[in-house]
Amino acid sequence: MKYNAMVGQSGGPTAAINATLAGVIRGAFANDEIDKIYGLQHGAEGLINKKFTLLNDVFKTDEDLTLLELTPAAALGSCRLKLPKYEEKPETYTDIFATLAEMNVKYFFYIGGNDSMDMVHKLSSYAAKVNSDIRFVGVPKTVDNDLMGTDHTPGYGSAAKYVATTLQEIVRDCAVYTTKAVTIVEVMGRDAGWLTASAALPRLIGTGAPDLVYMPEVDFNLEEFYEDVEKEFAIKPNLTIAVCEGIRFADGTYVGEGAQSGVRDTFGHKYLSGTAKYLTELVKEKFGCKVRAVDLNLPQRCAAHIGSLTDIEESVALGKSAVGFAVSGKTGITMAYKRISTEPYKIEIGCEDVANVANKVYEVPRKFINERGNNVTDECLKHIAPLIQGETKVVYEKGMPVHFVIPK
Amino acid sequence: MKYNAMVGQSGGPTAAINATLAGVIRGAFANDEIDKIYGLQHGAEGLINKKFTLLNDVFKTDEDLTLLELTPAAALGSCRLKLPKYEEKPETYTDIFATLAEMNVKYFFYIGGNDSMDMVHKLSSYAAKVNSDIRFVGVPKTVDNDLMGTDHTPGYGSAAKYVATTLQEIVRDCAVYTTKAVTIVEVMGRDAGWLTASAALPRLIGTGAPDLVYMPEVDFNLEEFYEDVEKEFAIKPNLTIAVCEGIRFADGTYVGEGAQSGVRDTFGHKYLSGTAKYLTELVKEKFGCKVRAVDLNLPQRCAAHIGSLTDIEESVALGKSAVGFAVSGKTGITMAYKRISTEPYKIEIGCEDVANVANKVYEVPRKFINERGNNVTDECLKHIAPLIQGETKVVYEKGMPVHFVIPK
Repeated sequence: MKYNAMVGQSGGPTAAINATLAGVIRGAFANDEIDKIYGLQHGAEGLINKKFTLLNDVFKTDEDLTLLELTPAAALGSCRLKLPKYEEKPETYTDIFATLAEMNVKYFFYIGGNDSMDMVHKLSSYAAKVNSDIRFVGVPKTVDNDLMGTDHTPGYGSAAKYVATTLQEIVRDCAVYTTKAVTIVEVMGRDAGWLTASAALPRLIGTGAPDLVYMPEVDFNLEEFYEDVEKEFAIKPNLTIAVCEGIRFADGTYVGEGAQSGVRDTFGHKYLSGTAKYLTELVKEKFGCKVRAVDLNLPQRCAAHIGSLTDIEESVALGKSAVGFAVSGKTGITMAYKRISTEPYKIEIGCEDVANVANKVYEVPRKFINERGNNVTDECLKHIAPLIQGETKVVYEKGMPVHFVIPK
Repeated sequence: MKYNAMVGQSGGPTAAINATLAGVIRGAFANDEIDKIYGLQHGAEGLINKKFTLLNDVFKTDEDLTLLELTPAAALGSCRLKLPKYEEKPETYTDIFATLAEMNVKYFFYIGGNDSMDMVHKLSSYAAKVNSDIRFVGVPKTVDNDLMGTDHTPGYGSAAKYVATTLQEIVRDCAVYTTKAVTIVEVMGRDAGWLTASAALPRLIGTGAPDLVYMPEVDFNLEEFYEDVEKEFAIKPNLTIAVCEGIRFADGTYVGEGAQSGVRDTFGHKYLSGTAKYLTELVKEKFGCKVRAVDLNLPQRCAAHIGSLTDIEESVALGKSAVGFAVSGKTGITMAYKRISTEPYKIEIGCEDVANVANKVYEVPRKFINERGNNVTDECLKHIAPLIQGETKVVYEKGMPVHFVIPK
């Protein structure tokens, strides 16, 4: 007898979350044990509200799936919904499992970050409790690269390639004037500096990397920061600095928090701004020079047009493998990359017990940050570099990248 | 007898200003009348401080020039220096012309925006006054596309391609949640909405364009803006809005001014940033929904990794032609694209008297904006579309685009 599969996406978008989805779909299409594959509309929301899309009807050709692999964000829709604990709301669980039984679903795949792995953990624990045979498999994704149990996360490589490429361009841009100026670029990462570290990758090809790089793994010290800037000014007039949005002072407060106590506009609205904006204001006051804050914002997590081929190919493979793992009997797991070697770069796909990875943070190891805490080490760049290698074959129509949109 | 040429870059960087530089260098290398070509270090600053780079020594192979064409920002360095009027400081002019005579320079090329064309005008006027035979030729560039006398400007097509690509990605990103939310994306353009208009280009391939587009050519009305947002909310929960940094209220004040310090640059231009941020605060207050402001900032003008092939090829051709025009005797001109037809797209290269174009602004025609003033017309998209066609062959090394850096 054949069973059906179900797949959902959750959390913040990345340039690779659809590549993993395509991998799961490809895996399901190719697997003899699987009949239909349903997509959850907006992740857990769709699961609770019973909103599904039959993906067999949507993807008719290999080209469709290839386009999906090149489409940023979550094509099925995402959510920020956190499943209640079983003890708090048991009916949520009985309801979900009734739906899954009704739809003959035996394989359930959930692509997401920390909260999604928490959901996989909850559902698989409940399945064990009620002796359900449904397999729950998590597939990680996040541009932050801060999940435990995997060498790196799908989506990180593409975001890192965008950040490295953009920083190199910004450094070029900022180098044109002879005026004393500081440009501070803010990179995503609430708890870990992985994406910020990638800003330094242009150093591998010679020029174009930011002069200073600050990450949350090291306490931020304002006096040392001023000293760092002063020292760089002795070398050249125009500095580029990458800062992680999550950098904190020794007392644990976010550096950007200070910005919220600031200016009010003519309408009396509080002018809220980020970490980079705040630091540029301080630099302007301290050094009296021209400053500019650049927040890489949403583009860094959805810039599929400069995706890493390595990231996209690995993400597809991870999704495919998730299907194989589920059909072979695994449940309560999250898929993972295991690095075999860095030079030459080689990984294997494995899995981890989801209970061991949920709600933990994978930080940048201290050895990947220099002693002063104001830049990454060469070892760090060597570790990250393989993840941004290769370029995807973006399909263009009328001068713009073509995306695949799943109709609702 | 052979003469020398000199070339400089000025104003804000673009992804195509080096393509034009490469064109001028290629033109000079190929022209029998020209011996050496000098590069001005930091534009007018290099001219006044006598800082030159002999480009014949720098560019030894065709590959070097091809890489230069793919390098963003101003490889020779730029400046914001405005030449004083002859009446104010005649010695500046006698000094410059003495230097040029000493260096046997007969052909002078200056690549830049409005302020650069003003300098070409001043220098060529002085040349006429003192019967100098030196030819001064301006070559336009600006991502703003706001120069008179040319159908469009080098650099605009690449910036437009980046803006269109990025907006499409942001729209994907913002569409994933079911929550009511407004994302406002701020695009460059102090006086003209050309670059903001390009945000709507994804509409040409179906989906992924912003719902509303506001440009400075139409007075911004807050009440109408609220009505527009309300109307869009009736259709879907997550809106994406593109706004030009230069949008103004009917009384002439910039919308973003409320959130600003009012700093002016050396030309007296007001620094604009924070228009999107400001509007999101108002939307949050009015609609109580989630908001996000994205400022495309520097990346939109230096994103050479997604340059328009049409833009880069045309920019090279324009630079080459500038050499031909100068050698044939033209001076006091700025190079220009003349559009022959849109479908099929065809242009010719010509020139304009620089006196007719300096210090004027080429705005988006009213017919290119819908009646309500909250979006562009299809005619506008048809007009812009040819300029973003084709993709450059970016050279990658270790996963990153390779740039050509001119040593100093």
